[in-house]
Amino acid sequence: MEPFRLTATEALAKIKDGSLSVEAYARSLLSRIEQRDDAVKAWAHLDPEYVIQQAKQLDLVPPEKRGPLHGVAIAVKDIMYTKDMPTQHNSPIYEGHDPTLDAAAIATLRHAGALLIGKATTTEFASTATGPKTLNPHDPTRTPGGSSSGSAAAVADFQVPLGLGTQTGGSTIRPGSFNGIFAFKPTWGAISREGLKFYSLNLDTIGFFARSVADLELLSDMFNLEDDDARPDFAIRGAKFAVLKTSVWPQAGPGTVAALEAGARLLRDGGADVEEIELPPEFDRVVEWHRTVLHSDGRPTFLPEYRVAKEKLDPFIADHVENGQKISRAAQLEAFDGLAALRPRIDEIAKKYAAILTPSVVDEAPKGTQSTGSPAFNCMWTALHTPVVNVPGFQGGNGMPIGLSLVAPRYHDRHLLIVSKAVGDIFAAEGGWKSKV
Amino acid sequence: MEPFRLTATEALAKIKDGSLSVEAYARSLLSRIEQRDDAVKAWAHLDPEYVIQQAKQLDLVPPEKRGPLHGVAIAVKDIMYTKDMPTQHNSPIYEGHDPTLDAAAIATLRHAGALLIGKATTTEFASTATGPKTLNPHDPTRTPGGSSSGSAAAVADFQVPLGLGTQTGGSTIRPGSFNGIFAFKPTWGAISREGLKFYSLNLDTIGFFARSVADLELLSDMFNLEDDDARPDFAIRGAKFAVLKTSVWPQAGPGTVAALEAGARLLRDGGADVEEIELPPEFDRVVEWHRTVLHSDGRPTFLPEYRVAKEKLDPFIADHVENGQKISRAAQLEAFDGLAALRPRIDEIAKKYAAILTPSVVDEAPKGTQSTGSPAFNCMWTALHTPVVNVPGFQGGNGMPIGLSLVAPRYHDRHLLIVSKAVGDIFAAEGGWKSKV
Repeated sequence: MEPFRLTATEALAKIKDGSLSVEAYARSLLSRIEQRDDAVKAWAHLDPEYVIQQAKQLDLVPPEKRGPLHGVAIAVKDIMYTKDMPTQHNSPIYEGHDPTLDAAAIATLRHAGALLIGKATTTEFASTATGPKTLNPHDPTRTPGGSSSGSAAAVADFQVPLGLGTQTGGSTIRPGSFNGIFAFKPTWGAISREGLKFYSLNLDTIGFFARSVADLELLSDMFNLEDDDARPDFAIRGAKFAVLKTSVWPQAGPGTVAALEAGARLLRDGGADVEEIELPPEFDRVVEWHRTVLHSDGRPTFLPEYRVAKEKLDPFIADHVENGQKISRAAQLEAFDGLAALRPRIDEIAKKYAAILTPSVVDEAPKGTQSTGSPAFNCMWTALHTPVVNVPGFQGGNGMPIGLSLVAPRYHDRHLLIVSKAVGDIFAAEGGWKSKV
Repeated sequence: MEPFRLTATEALAKIKDGSLSVEAYARSLLSRIEQRDDAVKAWAHLDPEYVIQQAKQLDLVPPEKRGPLHGVAIAVKDIMYTKDMPTQHNSPIYEGHDPTLDAAAIATLRHAGALLIGKATTTEFASTATGPKTLNPHDPTRTPGGSSSGSAAAVADFQVPLGLGTQTGGSTIRPGSFNGIFAFKPTWGAISREGLKFYSLNLDTIGFFARSVADLELLSDMFNLEDDDARPDFAIRGAKFAVLKTSVWPQAGPGTVAALEAGARLLRDGGADVEEIELPPEFDRVVEWHRTVLHSDGRPTFLPEYRVAKEKLDPFIADHVENGQKISRAAQLEAFDGLAALRPRIDEIAKKYAAILTPSVVDEAPKGTQSTGSPAFNCMWTALHTPVVNVPGFQGGNGMPIGLSLVAPRYHDRHLLIVSKAVGDIFAAEGGWKSKV
């Protein structure tokens, strides 16, 4: 197998046993990128020579001084500061912006020996639904989703094994689904967001993209993600799952309807106890409250850009600062407090199950790059701070990938990954979708 | 009056009417700093030549292009990134650290025409209780408090009219009290913390120091702090105040006991209706929960520094990453959710009053610089996200300043400032303490 096709865990093993140098690995990835970049356009910044230079440096590190991610290649969403690459937020205000600072997450990964390949595209400030130039590797007439467009597309296209994204609405789980890869939004607050561009203090969460759950676990180790208690001996047979359509189910297209049905059936076929549930009526306002928090948190966030260069801001972003939605402080606090009260409630409900199975997207990736698609099925979990994994395996009417979300209570991140691995194996084997890239 | 003695509002008026150039103003402040720096040591970084150069640039800006803070001098706590000055967090790990990035708050102030004088000292990562070199301007054998030590001391010592701090426990209100100046911790989330070093995502809040409430209002304008409804026509006579001793009252020393008594009496003398209240028992765990949130939020925050250079971290900080307090995820979530449930409750209670009057400190600033003092009376309000103003005016047994806190419901920031102005006038006139510096 060509090195660029390896998962991170596989590449790490080969680098460790000496059968693959970091330089050879980097050259393989770069050749893949060179071959595919015109089609996918995943990168906001990529300097192949610099990548090779970094890879050579890593090869010089004596084995006993190598970190746990030694040589593993990662794409970084371009709203995270990197001391050796520009960070431009897909905003004309920050064109060429190149501060010599590593975000907390970047410092952690760099110290572990990661090879940062480049900065991956994002929508403007990871906030708008208008796509960057990036195209879906499975069909270049379609969006890869957003706002973590480049990280997701690059991972799906075998240009890197791992990608860093963020989620404020559906910016990690949605592109995960559209690109047919695993995507993980951990519990809110579990990974430091220091050194990132903000959108919403109460919602922004760092997320990961990978082509295997083992790779999500590898990254989770790097960030010390820990549950109180996560048993590694999980089996589908005998486990209890909830299926939840949520209040936005009327928005689900035929691809998602079929995927959720198939997912539930496959779990049942595997010996799980699958129960369809509905949330109590106090959850009815979650989507509305998510939107209120988003807009009111965005008000202080974008103030500096508004003051400095309002004319260079997308009107949707400027509207946050102007409070165009006329959100009163009372309404803002009602949303803050309403969501806060529901967080322990959803934990209680989710604790009864191995995981909640619920849609990741309304349907397969839409045509064009103008819209990165709807986050309708993601906002609730972002607002409730629960961990979510997109598990790929299904397809829509046009043969594009569709994934399903697994949800667990807050700080059951490792448990959720263990469950996602077992579920992922079944969905990959029998869900019907295979990557052709 | 020498220009360095002016409040920001006064300096702004003189710069506006042409009677004071920014350069002349800067030279006056710098001469004050030169004269006093050996005694107070408020600065982690200060380059007088660069300040003069910036001041000259500001003088060249034509009047119609000047911002609303044109020429106003500000001290910046050294955990906020500034593109033209080092940002070192009082950590040996970040010695000489000089990324070319402005924090969101700095970009906002710079665009408004502020003159950044330098970086003011902080405790390590604004997290420890061990002081930096800074001394109390009213008595150099005592601490100015922390962690916003330098900003508070510089404002009290007339080295700058305005200072930026942060509060995670009591890091703004406590030094405000110890230095005899106004300090303001706005509602959590009301000002963007992008570009700051983190300690606790759920607690960190940007705060201001000034020698007048008008100056706090000036800064609040810059950050678009807005209530739903704040009536400017407030009068003490006929207003209703609550006096709250809180569950940590047994820690109050004689200076604070006397100050709270005097404060309540002065309000009554002014015609206010002053009522002593107690919080219902569900508030009993707030201080414990604050500590739990602090330690569990610090766990991801300090991970990069722990990995890169554990040996250069204060053991107190390393302990967060190691979870030395053995805080389970269940306990962490209980604290998150417990505090979240109390926030609307304290709003309800506080809404019945013009403000709640409560201690800012256990007593006057302690001797030495080893400890920056106790945040016992501050943690509750930080955890509850309410705005707090320290109003100076009283003194302890050694003639050192003691202030009292005024507290309002969340997003009643402008209301609280209006009330603080009226209360501040009375405390300044009749509280008994006068600055001698």
